[in-house]
Amino acid sequence: MKCKRCGELAAVKLPSHHAGFCPDCFEVFFKRQAETAIRRHGMIKPGEKVLVAVSGGKDSLALMRVLTDLGHDVDGLHVHLGIPDSSDPVCERTEAYCQENGFRLHVLRTAEVGLAIPEVKDAVHRPICAVCGKIKRHYFNRFAYENGYTALATGHNLDDEVARLFANTLRWDAAYLSSQGPTLPGEGRFVRKIKPLYRLTEFETAAYCFLKGINHWKAACPYSGGASFTGHKKLFADLEDRSPGQKTAFYEAFLAQGRPHFKGASRGEGQDTLYACAQCGFPSSGEVCGVCRVRELVAKRKGEAD
Amino acid sequence: MKCKRCGELAAVKLPSHHAGFCPDCFEVFFKRQAETAIRRHGMIKPGEKVLVAVSGGKDSLALMRVLTDLGHDVDGLHVHLGIPDSSDPVCERTEAYCQENGFRLHVLRTAEVGLAIPEVKDAVHRPICAVCGKIKRHYFNRFAYENGYTALATGHNLDDEVARLFANTLRWDAAYLSSQGPTLPGEGRFVRKIKPLYRLTEFETAAYCFLKGINHWKAACPYSGGASFTGHKKLFADLEDRSPGQKTAFYEAFLAQGRPHFKGASRGEGQDTLYACAQCGFPSSGEVCGVCRVRELVAKRKGEAD
Repeated sequence: MKCKRCGELAAVKLPSHHAGFCPDCFEVFFKRQAETAIRRHGMIKPGEKVLVAVSGGKDSLALMRVLTDLGHDVDGLHVHLGIPDSSDPVCERTEAYCQENGFRLHVLRTAEVGLAIPEVKDAVHRPICAVCGKIKRHYFNRFAYENGYTALATGHNLDDEVARLFANTLRWDAAYLSSQGPTLPGEGRFVRKIKPLYRLTEFETAAYCFLKGINHWKAACPYSGGASFTGHKKLFADLEDRSPGQKTAFYEAFLAQGRPHFKGASRGEGQDTLYACAQCGFPSSGEVCGVCRVRELVAKRKGEAD
Repeated sequence: MKCKRCGELAAVKLPSHHAGFCPDCFEVFFKRQAETAIRRHGMIKPGEKVLVAVSGGKDSLALMRVLTDLGHDVDGLHVHLGIPDSSDPVCERTEAYCQENGFRLHVLRTAEVGLAIPEVKDAVHRPICAVCGKIKRHYFNRFAYENGYTALATGHNLDDEVARLFANTLRWDAAYLSSQGPTLPGEGRFVRKIKPLYRLTEFETAAYCFLKGINHWKAACPYSGGASFTGHKKLFADLEDRSPGQKTAFYEAFLAQGRPHFKGASRGEGQDTLYACAQCGFPSSGEVCGVCRVRELVAKRKGEAD
């Protein structure tokens, strides 16, 4: 197969785009997809400072790289979760990659705010992944807000977005369907959330990292049972095999024709109102936000153990 | 496994209902599911005459049986398509079954209205299944309307409905999503369309036929490439294996929480208006309806051949 742009030998085959690309032209394709996403969904304003949520995996490192190459003003934030044998090496690898590439990276250690994940796991009787996700989202947003970033970029790719959309659609969850998309506007203490890689698949992000020599962290979190939405991703992979382009078509049709019908859908009586958390001041559905409540549980358990 | 109702040995296992049933209790279950569908979706009014679309396959024969057993006043209509080596034996088998069971069955031969399917296939340059489906829907509705039936029942099962819903959702086709459901109200010359088996799976309908000794036609149409939506059905079968009850949950959540958001969605500018076909008088999106246009093409081709 020949590269669609330059006619040289193709290294990456993309059936959904009826195309193959050589390494250099694949990079051009990758950047253009991110550029299109940013432009079409008003993700980044001129001169805006963007914070990138950096886990150290392929998507977040590819995102740092491509946003920088597109000329945006980005800094990274890595949240160190305090998980033994995992958080330290992930953090070191991420810091090393950023230093080598001249990226500015902030590191926030949840242990320093009373939320080391092993202690959270022992104190909270809910699946740890859901609680950990809540904590990370809280601190990514909070750090951005408190440090003058008006946009927070995450590395969600097309497969992530399609799997989440399918999960929301299976339940016909109107409130979630009304707000799912590549850009979630900022409001009050919520900064704008953007997903510049939403037009690129997991495979394309992995290929980009491989071809660019991005040495990302590959192991799964020791606390998780594997990647989220694995079943839904497999299901859409089969669908894509049968008809290439189906994932993009499903997601883009949702944005153009589906989502508008759910505009303003409520989460249920009294569920839409947000208050300022009495402890941290960040948006909360109750008097005290979920993260501050978890912190209290951890502190209480430690107090009892002492 | 024991029967959930009577404690005898179960013959049919239904993970989505956390139940197994012996043959007699499975029949009770099957009838109740149809009864619930009819009641919840206002399918049949007291004393109403219902026409059942009878292909001769498992779903339509099970539907004739269960509606009769539930005390409804039903007649069948079988459309003989004029396909060599197929339509005659299907029709004979269907007539024999109805006669043995005391069901009244009308037979309409498309060849007698200038629409033998082999001739249609030669005259029309579109996939024959789509055209044949259009012709059948036209005549089922027309026969019902002209003979005083105010409801037309079809044998669509849960798998059919879920696959169709998924296809409409993949395209986020708002107009189709607004009208998909187990009951489509009658209007003008459109009689009410009802799907009393929509809560029952393909497996459950097949088990019902097997246990009741219903000798249905099993071969696929020689013109079709197999059942429709095969890929989508397989996909939802995998999903159901992973989490039993998912098909029902998806479809019922759509009816309760999804469909209302698409109410009144348009098919596009000027696409919603219906006219009376200048030739047959039945609803049409243009001056002459699609079925009358196909009939003209067939007649023209025969005229040229003579």
